[in-house]
Amino acid sequence: MPSDIWLSRINWSADGLIPVIAQEADSGTILMVAWMNRDALKLTVEKGEAVYWSRSRKKLWHKGEESGHIQKIRDIFLDCDEDVLLLVVEQIGGIACHTGRHSCFFQKLENNAWVSTGSIIKDPEKIYHK
Amino acid sequence: MPSDIWLSRINWSADGLIPVIAQEADSGTILMVAWMNRDALKLTVEKGEAVYWSRSRKKLWHKGEESGHIQKIRDIFLDCDEDVLLLVVEQIGGIACHTGRHSCFFQKLENNAWVSTGSIIKDPEKIYHK
Repeated sequence: MPSDIWLSRINWSADGLIPVIAQEADSGTILMVAWMNRDALKLTVEKGEAVYWSRSRKKLWHKGEESGHIQKIRDIFLDCDEDVLLLVVEQIGGIACHTGRHSCFFQKLENNAWVSTGSIIKDPEKIYHK
Repeated sequence: MPSDIWLSRINWSADGLIPVIAQEADSGTILMVAWMNRDALKLTVEKGEAVYWSRSRKKLWHKGEESGHIQKIRDIFLDCDEDVLLLVVEQIGGIACHTGRHSCFFQKLENNAWVSTGSIIKDPEKIYHK
């Protein structure tokens, strides 16, 4: 039976969460940041696909469950303070952001203003079948 | 006089902070995650070098002030939820981690255990002149 010692090494927040960066394996692009609790991380490892904890919906969130844009796990890293995780992933569909963009980090600071960069690959209305 | 509207766009936490990812410009390596408050971000933009808020020391922390391992800013991005920043930086000295490694994300999950990866480029005792 696998031990859960590795889960206890993590410095979970008072809320039992840890921030998680998802980075695209081949491009190095930082796709998004989300949160995990203990169950989410265990499921992520078991499935080999990213499962986060949605703080707004207060439930487990299998990334891509609605959009199909799942994240296949290549590697998982923990930082020196043991309070941030890094997932190296394959982003199915090439879209991580709910706006239909490749990455969530598309607002760039230019001359004291946030300028939108990164094309909308797919209309969110078509991603989520609203 | 420059406007601070861009600072108000950020969803600061209840503590007035935002998590910040530092990514190396040329390699795409995720170096570290730290925090900024409003003053830290303003100073980062003014200096063109990363200035964080140290939650443990409760003061502004000009990264590299002691070690010399400063981070020169190439670009700053904000995510779609406007609650995480991404700094694209040039890491002076090639060392971001206080352990003397290139990146703070050096513990890799392998068979339910965290395995240290990434060589220690410089002994921390020599970095910090303790």
